[in-house]
Amino acid sequence: MSSSAESYPISKRNRVVRRPMRGHYDKATVHGILDAALLCHIAYVIDGQPYCTPTSFWREGGKLYWHGSSASRMIRSQGAGLPVCLTVTHMDAIVLARCGFNHSVNYRAVMAYGVAHLISDPEEKARLMDRFLERFFPGRASLMRRPTKQEIKATSFIGMEIEQASAKIRDLHVHDEEADYAVPAWTALLPVRTVLGKIEECPRQLPGVRKPRGMKGYVAGRPMDEIFAEAYRAYEKAFD
Amino acid sequence: MSSSAESYPISKRNRVVRRPMRGHYDKATVHGILDAALLCHIAYVIDGQPYCTPTSFWREGGKLYWHGSSASRMIRSQGAGLPVCLTVTHMDAIVLARCGFNHSVNYRAVMAYGVAHLISDPEEKARLMDRFLERFFPGRASLMRRPTKQEIKATSFIGMEIEQASAKIRDLHVHDEEADYAVPAWTALLPVRTVLGKIEECPRQLPGVRKPRGMKGYVAGRPMDEIFAEAYRAYEKAFD
Repeated sequence: MSSSAESYPISKRNRVVRRPMRGHYDKATVHGILDAALLCHIAYVIDGQPYCTPTSFWREGGKLYWHGSSASRMIRSQGAGLPVCLTVTHMDAIVLARCGFNHSVNYRAVMAYGVAHLISDPEEKARLMDRFLERFFPGRASLMRRPTKQEIKATSFIGMEIEQASAKIRDLHVHDEEADYAVPAWTALLPVRTVLGKIEECPRQLPGVRKPRGMKGYVAGRPMDEIFAEAYRAYEKAFD
Repeated sequence: MSSSAESYPISKRNRVVRRPMRGHYDKATVHGILDAALLCHIAYVIDGQPYCTPTSFWREGGKLYWHGSSASRMIRSQGAGLPVCLTVTHMDAIVLARCGFNHSVNYRAVMAYGVAHLISDPEEKARLMDRFLERFFPGRASLMRRPTKQEIKATSFIGMEIEQASAKIRDLHVHDEEADYAVPAWTALLPVRTVLGKIEECPRQLPGVRKPRGMKGYVAGRPMDEIFAEAYRAYEKAFD
């Protein structure tokens, strides 16, 4: 177990066993992968049954937050303090090869472990609503109609201190056994890019209302991971 | 509980509780979402600790398959028959609004439940290696150098009969409370597209080797979900 401020402690739970050279535990790498995403998948257990739920999330320092309706099964179960594994995956490429065995995928993934707690204080919930917006759309919270008491009540936020985490990265081109390069199969790296499409403004946009400065990074064709990471840096600068 | 051949049975485990109008249980919808993906996230439990592991997977009829090294923790644990939840999520858009509460994400997601089993028969494993390739790259298996006994031994495949599943879909534009349309905040739907990037051929491609006909759908700029779904239809036609 390491107790360095720069890295997450390693134990059996988060050690990368398969292809350990792809494993990273330093906070810079782990946070960089988390902060480039909006979508995560959360594993949790109810009565022995595992569930894997997709949701949007964000990070504040060593904590992760996500939200959902008070009615959701996950939120109710997690209110009591539930062990979870929150995973973020960026798929970067499909890598073809000259035998089935050498086919692969390039990716950046983080698995973060901790205990999820329901946040019940209305003031903290109102703060988190703003943070959730600010983290993805810098400057947006102040443009909004303020949340009503009913909306705050109907929204649940869940927070989790990252106890441990691991990142796993593969970033390699086609690699075959030397003898296999004689096999006449077409091989290539197929990059996969998740990008912003053509923005569709609200048909009821008020006249003269323009895309705010804090969202200037949201340009069609740009990779979402770049946009999210850039927004995160602006948010971090404003709040921390 | 429904026992229709066209739909997955519904129970507490897979019923969509939050926003039930977004829930779907028919096999056409569930399979359509699964077959448009290569990446899934699998939740499973070891000693009470949930894990959420990203991996590539594919469907054959009512079964899902994925693979990994024999060494991986997940595979070893799942060999005995482990309850899992396999989730696929396509994020389609971010939807801005005039209050925090009405911000949303458009998505298509499936959560599939079953018991995962390790496949140990070498002949079945060799067959699955081919199927895994064919499902994504129609016609590719026959172009490959055949797998060695050692490669087959080093590869684990896991199969799971889908016992239950649910799909959840949100596909809506900006929607605000009537009074909020007076709020001068810029609002829009931000489409998110996961597309194929510019193909990077292997630098050691043999002269005269061209992209095979079965991969003609792999064209830069095309959405990956379309490519994967199209490849799945070709594969289904060839095998079923």
